[in-house]
Amino acid sequence: MSITDIERAGVDGSQADGAGRFNRRKVYVDGPGGIRVPFTEVALADSPGPAGPQANPPVRLYDTSGPGSDPRVGLPPLRRPWIVARGDVEEYEGRTPTLRDDGRGAVRRAEAPEPFTGQRRRPLRGIGTPVTQLAYARRGIVTPEMEFIALREQVDPTVVRDEVAAGRAIIPANVNHPESEPMVIGRRFLVKVNANIGNSAVTSSVAEEVEKLTWATRCGADTVMDLSTGTDIHTTREWILRNAPVPIGTVPIYQALEKVDGRAEELSWDVYRDTIVEQAEQGVDYVTVHAGVLLRYVPLTARRVTGIVSRGGSIMAAWCLAHHQENFLYTHFEELCEILAAYDVAFSLGDGLRPGSVADANDEAQFAELRTLGELTDIAWRHDVQVMIEGPGHVPLHKVAENVTLQQQLCHEAPFYTLGPLTTDVAPGYDHITSAVGAAVIGMHGTAMLCYVTPKEHLGLPDRDDVKQGMIAYKIAAHAADLAKGHPGAQAWDDALSKARFEFRWEDQFNLALDPATARAYHDATLPAEPAKTAHFCSMCGPKFCSMRISHDIRAGSDAAAAQAATAVQAGMEAKAVEFRAAGSQIYHEPTAR
Amino acid sequence: MSITDIERAGVDGSQADGAGRFNRRKVYVDGPGGIRVPFTEVALADSPGPAGPQANPPVRLYDTSGPGSDPRVGLPPLRRPWIVARGDVEEYEGRTPTLRDDGRGAVRRAEAPEPFTGQRRRPLRGIGTPVTQLAYARRGIVTPEMEFIALREQVDPTVVRDEVAAGRAIIPANVNHPESEPMVIGRRFLVKVNANIGNSAVTSSVAEEVEKLTWATRCGADTVMDLSTGTDIHTTREWILRNAPVPIGTVPIYQALEKVDGRAEELSWDVYRDTIVEQAEQGVDYVTVHAGVLLRYVPLTARRVTGIVSRGGSIMAAWCLAHHQENFLYTHFEELCEILAAYDVAFSLGDGLRPGSVADANDEAQFAELRTLGELTDIAWRHDVQVMIEGPGHVPLHKVAENVTLQQQLCHEAPFYTLGPLTTDVAPGYDHITSAVGAAVIGMHGTAMLCYVTPKEHLGLPDRDDVKQGMIAYKIAAHAADLAKGHPGAQAWDDALSKARFEFRWEDQFNLALDPATARAYHDATLPAEPAKTAHFCSMCGPKFCSMRISHDIRAGSDAAAAQAATAVQAGMEAKAVEFRAAGSQIYHEPTAR
Repeated sequence: MSITDIERAGVDGSQADGAGRFNRRKVYVDGPGGIRVPFTEVALADSPGPAGPQANPPVRLYDTSGPGSDPRVGLPPLRRPWIVARGDVEEYEGRTPTLRDDGRGAVRRAEAPEPFTGQRRRPLRGIGTPVTQLAYARRGIVTPEMEFIALREQVDPTVVRDEVAAGRAIIPANVNHPESEPMVIGRRFLVKVNANIGNSAVTSSVAEEVEKLTWATRCGADTVMDLSTGTDIHTTREWILRNAPVPIGTVPIYQALEKVDGRAEELSWDVYRDTIVEQAEQGVDYVTVHAGVLLRYVPLTARRVTGIVSRGGSIMAAWCLAHHQENFLYTHFEELCEILAAYDVAFSLGDGLRPGSVADANDEAQFAELRTLGELTDIAWRHDVQVMIEGPGHVPLHKVAENVTLQQQLCHEAPFYTLGPLTTDVAPGYDHITSAVGAAVIGMHGTAMLCYVTPKEHLGLPDRDDVKQGMIAYKIAAHAADLAKGHPGAQAWDDALSKARFEFRWEDQFNLALDPATARAYHDATLPAEPAKTAHFCSMCGPKFCSMRISHDIRAGSDAAAAQAATAVQAGMEAKAVEFRAAGSQIYHEPTAR
Repeated sequence: MSITDIERAGVDGSQADGAGRFNRRKVYVDGPGGIRVPFTEVALADSPGPAGPQANPPVRLYDTSGPGSDPRVGLPPLRRPWIVARGDVEEYEGRTPTLRDDGRGAVRRAEAPEPFTGQRRRPLRGIGTPVTQLAYARRGIVTPEMEFIALREQVDPTVVRDEVAAGRAIIPANVNHPESEPMVIGRRFLVKVNANIGNSAVTSSVAEEVEKLTWATRCGADTVMDLSTGTDIHTTREWILRNAPVPIGTVPIYQALEKVDGRAEELSWDVYRDTIVEQAEQGVDYVTVHAGVLLRYVPLTARRVTGIVSRGGSIMAAWCLAHHQENFLYTHFEELCEILAAYDVAFSLGDGLRPGSVADANDEAQFAELRTLGELTDIAWRHDVQVMIEGPGHVPLHKVAENVTLQQQLCHEAPFYTLGPLTTDVAPGYDHITSAVGAAVIGMHGTAMLCYVTPKEHLGLPDRDDVKQGMIAYKIAAHAADLAKGHPGAQAWDDALSKARFEFRWEDQFNLALDPATARAYHDATLPAEPAKTAHFCSMCGPKFCSMRISHDIRAGSDAAAAQAATAVQAGMEAKAVEFRAAGSQIYHEPTAR
């Protein structure tokens, strides 16, 4: 399959498609300065009412799918004018890519993979002062990015600015990734979901990765991490960035390791620095940096059931032991901050010592590193660099809350970004579920972004369907957390769907579903012709005995509230009675209700 | 498909099969009085060690699959000798089944469906005194059922007796269902999972239901509810009971409604009483009774988003409104207790007013009914009848804990048995996941049994694969809760699997998985030939730079613990270094690790 074969697939997840399937369409809400913020709008049918049909307002859902692109051309540079207008960046020649950027494979065959052929721009970088959203927020500036986000999150723009200024939220927005639609990661906002993609030495092509990117954003991915470790790593990332309507994160040590032919002991600050500049110039929005894996913490993992399970963490632990020196990411952290500040690349401070089994959760190795990440957060903030903190991993349910509480305390409320956590180790093949449980709970307690886990976790690399299954499980977890946090507007979606369910507006129920196609398919598979699709409580009462009795209940009502309720019952019942007779006087109930 | 076509399928879930696939076999642990308690035993390979291979003890898992049966013959009556030996029951002629017991379909065609042809026994009932496990426990007796359970749960038999005596746990064990292997439902014990099966007017046959029963118990169902509402309801239940190694629950009002041709207003205590006796004589172990749906509570549901969603609840609400009388299950509750006490049928007091959407969670209608269930618990206990309490439904995460807390308080610590709860309404097609989240959390807070939800919830009737998907999600939820509650032995399973994972004993990892076949299939699909299956932390360090540096770390260790840890690191590393070289010096990590 070539890159150009990627088609606009049908809707999966909560995103609109252009064709208006499932009564969904993409709409734009206009903001100041020509800002246009996308939403998926679901049109609904009328409700039956005692005085005739009553209109239901359309439901607007957060939309991460972007405007769509021909992969060879890439997306339009939405944010470019905003960036240039700030007058604090310069175009420059940039680093010259080498064959080695694409790994050993490219060097060996003396040829780079198919290059991205769309519009190429020379990189931008800040002139002198940091060009980060944090720097602007601290100066009291509401950027167009913040205006965009305010409309997206349905809050005031100053709330976005203030949360960013306080370090409680980040807006990953590299000046060299103008294609991305602004989004925010912070506990005050909707819980976000990251999808991991990326090739490895043995599987996947550039085209497949771009397809997974598109697929993930259609399923609702708020950011995507490109974790490629194999060949063509630079070129794959270029294709991804130019087609990504969401921020892109990476773990630069993976590419740095590839540049030294996989020999961890040959890693150095110089190789890493070169890689960071390369990726910052391409437009990577946030980078996982395992700067908290200190030499003295490594022995703390010795008695663990599963040692160190983070790839980046194990690379740095190995380097520390090999050289018996402190982690070069830690010792060069200020220099790293200076680079990131010039492009607005955000830190995702990695938890290289995260637990890889429930037995190892919340241990000294994990929390020692977390304390160091708190210190590094302070340093990054001094450089106006945005920071979020990565968290575990594998954590039994009763130890989940402590992870957020401690992280918020030690890292001064910087946003928390967790991988699950998996709440048990015993279900490989179903770790999207074992971890969705932990993700929902840790989200409820204030985690700002959840890194999805697919059914293939621990077993293999995810394919497109795995990406979808992981995304669905994590959209559920994030939305459950939004409901629990009382995010304004979150419950309106549930209420609209439940109202449709109660009124047997089946099409509306499908169209509002997180995955409309699957909901409809499941229904059609077993109940395509079932006649008993009328309501339960009200229609249960039906023509024979409900509506004529209810007046007695009203009289029995001893207070105004009861009377009001009873009136509503009566009104509803009379309407339902008609429907009930029309549908064959069958009792309906939830299929597995007791 | 006829009933005899049912085969012993391959292992799904945590159960053993006779052929020893996945290194699993069924073993029996001997107890007093010839009791033999089944477990699934997973044999493991040796671990590599510095001084040679080290044996790993086999892992024993709770086994619900039963000894297996030819459906036409049924299971052996395991508990019959124990029941008879107590000398407090009599055999009697029992009620004569009628065509109407099999519903309108049988009456119309003037023919009952294919009868169960295995061993038929005349029913037993108590002579005078209650023959319930509660009555025995209160008298200080440790029954064989309690001995069996103690071995199953790995606790002292007196703990089982005392929890039952206090009403904090129940042992559903009808004297007419001697085929069932004793199990306990209570917060002090492993969290249990119920699977719903049952035909409807439009789908499914007797054979399919028996197959679903077998499938569900192989997947780990601790109890099964037969929610049949269609034709052949008596005969289907007979086939199910005679082949069920787990307790069977029902909602008798469904059959009673069928006996009055679906006209709820024609229901009466007499019809209901006849149905209860019929089911008690067949061997139903627990019955959902919606005796808490009081006339005065019905108007409380009027302003809900989704009114009444419990089928049983809506039937009783309709009856109350139609007759403007109090619920006959409430007014005849003491008489009902007397019947159940004579067979040891347990109450599952139904939550007929449970919320059907997150908007309706924890409202006055729900909690008013819960208070009444508390009163009914007291009455049942006065009759020595065992009681558990059913709970919701749809509850956002932040309101989940209140459900258990209040239930435990109002119902005097009687076991709680919840349907999910679903933590959001927006994902029809994935409600096994939306609800597994709530189920794990409510289990952690003390819910004793979780009623599974399948992907078809709200959309259609589950097929065999839906049963499996629902069971897997709920076994995950229950086990996550067991871990969080610190149930003795629960974490041993996780630790054994994680140790296998860390040591790259792939076969052991598959064999220990909740669903071995899926874990193996996922792995084989993507990584069948990947050479890099060696460890991470230790092997990362490899021959080039780790083991020779570690002595320096030991010297640097400032206390004994650090030295001990470092020694362990060194020992592990030296062993890993050999493995690392043998496997091609590749770095391994979790596929989606950052």
